[in-house]
Amino acid sequence: MLELFDGIRDELQAVEEELRSFVQCSDPLITETSVHLLNAGGKRLRPALSIFGGKFYNFHLEKVLPLAVALELIHMATLVHDDVVDSSLTRRGIPTVKAKWGNSISTHVGTYLFARSLVLISRYEDQPLISRVLSNTSVKMCEGEIQQIAGAFDLGQSFKDYFYRIKRKTALLIAASVQLGAVACGAPAGIHQPLRRYGHFIGMAFQLTDDILDMVADQQQLGKPVGSDLREGIITMPVIYALAESNRRDRLRELVGKTVKDEGEIKEAIDIVRECGAIEYSFKVVRRYVLKAKEQLAGLPGVPARAVLLQAADFIGARKF
Amino acid sequence: MLELFDGIRDELQAVEEELRSFVQCSDPLITETSVHLLNAGGKRLRPALSIFGGKFYNFHLEKVLPLAVALELIHMATLVHDDVVDSSLTRRGIPTVKAKWGNSISTHVGTYLFARSLVLISRYEDQPLISRVLSNTSVKMCEGEIQQIAGAFDLGQSFKDYFYRIKRKTALLIAASVQLGAVACGAPAGIHQPLRRYGHFIGMAFQLTDDILDMVADQQQLGKPVGSDLREGIITMPVIYALAESNRRDRLRELVGKTVKDEGEIKEAIDIVRECGAIEYSFKVVRRYVLKAKEQLAGLPGVPARAVLLQAADFIGARKF
Repeated sequence: MLELFDGIRDELQAVEEELRSFVQCSDPLITETSVHLLNAGGKRLRPALSIFGGKFYNFHLEKVLPLAVALELIHMATLVHDDVVDSSLTRRGIPTVKAKWGNSISTHVGTYLFARSLVLISRYEDQPLISRVLSNTSVKMCEGEIQQIAGAFDLGQSFKDYFYRIKRKTALLIAASVQLGAVACGAPAGIHQPLRRYGHFIGMAFQLTDDILDMVADQQQLGKPVGSDLREGIITMPVIYALAESNRRDRLRELVGKTVKDEGEIKEAIDIVRECGAIEYSFKVVRRYVLKAKEQLAGLPGVPARAVLLQAADFIGARKF
Repeated sequence: MLELFDGIRDELQAVEEELRSFVQCSDPLITETSVHLLNAGGKRLRPALSIFGGKFYNFHLEKVLPLAVALELIHMATLVHDDVVDSSLTRRGIPTVKAKWGNSISTHVGTYLFARSLVLISRYEDQPLISRVLSNTSVKMCEGEIQQIAGAFDLGQSFKDYFYRIKRKTALLIAASVQLGAVACGAPAGIHQPLRRYGHFIGMAFQLTDDILDMVADQQQLGKPVGSDLREGIITMPVIYALAESNRRDRLRELVGKTVKDEGEIKEAIDIVRECGAIEYSFKVVRRYVLKAKEQLAGLPGVPARAVLLQAADFIGARKF
């Protein structure tokens, strides 16, 4: 993905600097936890998408910059809050804020980062759509997280439940990123609406790929233990498929429903999922989303960013880590 | 306090109905936790103050209502997030969300309520001051919470540290409530600024009184165990005073610094604090804040709300539960 961002390297550098100066604060604990999060890396996917969105219309970096930083802060906030939930001790291969500082600090640092993003967003007084979209997106993201917890180990979930959840968990913020980058630059609905739909479809493809890779990637590449969704009771598309289609589905049902699983059981469950064609089926759905994403760009101006977004969609459909 | 709200009973009834219909959502878990929070009661102090603020200028309920509901949602969000922190199992005498549903749900429900408040606030496109003040206030509230955790069991705290913290924890949102109620009705700075300062001073008095009552009230009246701050290592004004002034300060230092205290130790620490005059000293500071609060109203129009706010300041200075 990173090579795709080559054309906006300067802009992303500015986002990075802005992020780093932004999290410096008088409280040493807040600065320390925030710098820890920034150093943990991440692709800065949402800032990048907002910049590409802006490139479709009268782009000026200073118009998009507060939004780009705010989007990454919101994303970071959800990561910190997620860690309170799923008791992960590592993310991207390094210890989580929760593992280092505990639940209390994680809760407040997450909310702190979220609140800081609002301060940035409140600068867009002339484009009320930005705060309207982001506040609605934030509400739905929380709903998605709560549904994920409420639905843990629930074997009765359908594909519909799954899509509902990943839309909220991931796709909405990605959709908002591409759309609002354009809005920040003053683009009309004819431009920012197709960009939003593009973002929705790549967001769905992105999360579904993540969920597939949790079954098939190796731990080194993934930066976190394989099978972590199964361990947490999060039922993803490949599992829903296998629970319906595998001829060993009774055994899978038994394994997935166990709230505590040993490594052998995780491995056995993954084997059942893999051997019934669930991975291929899920990748097929990913490709469908990628195709739909690309279709949204058809009517948009032929700016260089358009070619990059087309490639980005393909990349997301093909990524292996 | 409640009799003071008699003059705005209809308005508060509207806030209550709006709150209840607002938390109804498609997710049963979110509705259940939110209704639980609403049923736990609370004085609806912030909505009431925003209504009184509005009464100083061309008041219309529909102008203040979204703000009033948003203020209570923000307050509820902080209560839920606080419970993740201090592992309280009861609040206002009934089980907390955390005790019933766990840390993960508490974290997300808190953020959900906060995000819902943003949706309401985004309606005030014409008064950007409202979202600006509330986003800055939210950031500082998180800072206050984080400082409270970082400073737990830290015996080297000064009055200045304490005031810094309670300003963030409590006074800023109360200040914002009175001020923004007026702003929502279109009041000029000459009206909403003194109201903000009034809110600041009663907010400080309110939190300080809370902290005093945690030492002297009885559990029945308080709705939570007495000495809970000491138990959590939260160092409040009476303790800071006693650590400096009591002739048994060495023993107090030893007791307060213990991360686990039994009931006898809590009682002994409270006795040391009470016998050195720390309570009287702290109440004197409360009375000074009350006086300053009332002074802010001197130049404002003589509307009935002004008389109520004057009484409210006195009430806060004199409350025993």
